[in-house]
Amino acid sequence: MELIIAGTVALDDVKTPFGEVKGALGGSATYAAYAASHFSRPGIVSVIGEDFPKQHLDMLEKRGIDLKGLKKEGKTFRWDGYYEFDMNEAKTLRTELNALENFTPKLPEAYKKAKYVFLANIDPGVQLAVLQQVKKPAWVVTDTMNFWIENKKEELMKVIKKTDTLLLNDGEARELFKTTNLVKAANEALKLGPSSVIIKKGEHGALLFTKDKHFNAPGYPLENIKDPTGCGDSFGGALIGHLASTKLHGEWNLRKAVMYGSTLASFNAEEFSLEKLKSIKKEDIEKRLKEFREMREF
Amino acid sequence: MELIIAGTVALDDVKTPFGEVKGALGGSATYAAYAASHFSRPGIVSVIGEDFPKQHLDMLEKRGIDLKGLKKEGKTFRWDGYYEFDMNEAKTLRTELNALENFTPKLPEAYKKAKYVFLANIDPGVQLAVLQQVKKPAWVVTDTMNFWIENKKEELMKVIKKTDTLLLNDGEARELFKTTNLVKAANEALKLGPSSVIIKKGEHGALLFTKDKHFNAPGYPLENIKDPTGCGDSFGGALIGHLASTKLHGEWNLRKAVMYGSTLASFNAEEFSLEKLKSIKKEDIEKRLKEFREMREF
Repeated sequence: MELIIAGTVALDDVKTPFGEVKGALGGSATYAAYAASHFSRPGIVSVIGEDFPKQHLDMLEKRGIDLKGLKKEGKTFRWDGYYEFDMNEAKTLRTELNALENFTPKLPEAYKKAKYVFLANIDPGVQLAVLQQVKKPAWVVTDTMNFWIENKKEELMKVIKKTDTLLLNDGEARELFKTTNLVKAANEALKLGPSSVIIKKGEHGALLFTKDKHFNAPGYPLENIKDPTGCGDSFGGALIGHLASTKLHGEWNLRKAVMYGSTLASFNAEEFSLEKLKSIKKEDIEKRLKEFREMREF
Repeated sequence: MELIIAGTVALDDVKTPFGEVKGALGGSATYAAYAASHFSRPGIVSVIGEDFPKQHLDMLEKRGIDLKGLKKEGKTFRWDGYYEFDMNEAKTLRTELNALENFTPKLPEAYKKAKYVFLANIDPGVQLAVLQQVKKPAWVVTDTMNFWIENKKEELMKVIKKTDTLLLNDGEARELFKTTNLVKAANEALKLGPSSVIIKKGEHGALLFTKDKHFNAPGYPLENIKDPTGCGDSFGGALIGHLASTKLHGEWNLRKAVMYGSTLASFNAEEFSLEKLKSIKKEDIEKRLKEFREMREF
């Protein structure tokens, strides 16, 4: 297993001004793995419940996503949330951790040899436990959320220390480093261990900071956004998927990976759940990447 | 007079988390004209009071900015405002319109032949009066603010109808077209008359929309922002300054103009009042433009 992705697999109730879904396939590992599957063949490290619909498992396996690292016990994690017209901010109505509550990841042997590891948004304790089982990772990408910054900062810091590329959204970066200035936040983050820090800004794109370079990735001007759930996860999944498929970690390949991240995230927002990610093909991705390139030429 | 800029000339009290100034030179026309002076030789259409310090007039004239369109009567317009850590939003403590209250612009003969007109932020009634006196403008750029959208929408709409390039910040665009979606807002704006619409997003850069193209200009990653006052005006001033100096209005030259706008705006935020705009030279501008180019290559 070249690439493994640890995170949540969930059933989501989501409502946006443009529609709603109930019990839809979601979770950080799900979105990330599906986005990554456009570039590489990831394995998922997560837990689901006995209630998890078999059709989703079949769909993921058919897509070439490995599920040997997916434990099954109790009830599936559920998230119930909504978005108002400012689609940058998810509001949570209810979170049922269920099987996630006492989840201790135990990696299959093949997963321990993974070179690329994406620690998608999940309890930093789980992220750390996954990382400790991987023998010799070549590149570790870590994502998180404000909840962990507020409640499990110490463990999160341990994960960040072992991270190569840290993903934060702008609000999290400001919160973690207690500054409104994203450049200062990124520079602080680079002192903690990662050699690259990516600040995701939703519709405003993303910023990649490395030691002495800065890359500014635009947001894609979407006229019709239906559901931004999973955009950050899709971003990270496409990013590590591209890295795993190229095995290059220099500035230029990181930039390209960020652009693939932006591309998959922009597609993901166009439909609920994983519907859009499932409908696009390699040529759609390359076409949008070309549009990105053209809209920044001057 | 090839280029004229109508707007306010003010004395500002400004406080930010990084310092404060009292009675400092400010105003939309002042910032815009100074930024434009890096590219062209603008004339200002505005009003000041008898109390206006002569040193500022001398400084502007020495810079090659024409002041024949600058009326003098009563007391100078004063703005007293502050910024908190979110430097994207100015908070007003006090506005003294003074001489601006009954300002009716009367253009000098030379100004009536202007080809490039920047209607910087000022009462849309004044913008309209200026425009009606210009015989045959080649390109009109219009800026505004939320106050005029809320209080003088009808007159503002008349100005927009005669505008070639409309500038709005993201909040204004959302307010004017009652949508959170900036693509939709821009498309609505394009139906009103302008052939190009620029949405300024502060630290997140700017978006240029033309009939079927979209250009995404990044924000410059400033580590030290002192005072964002006048950044939007500097953006517009540099934009029209570049257009006036090249006399080209096609997509590619507009994109270049937007980048000069972003460049001057980013410099302006580094010091209070016009201090930074006064200290930079052509080579500083070109150097930053090159940095902008490099930070978006992939």
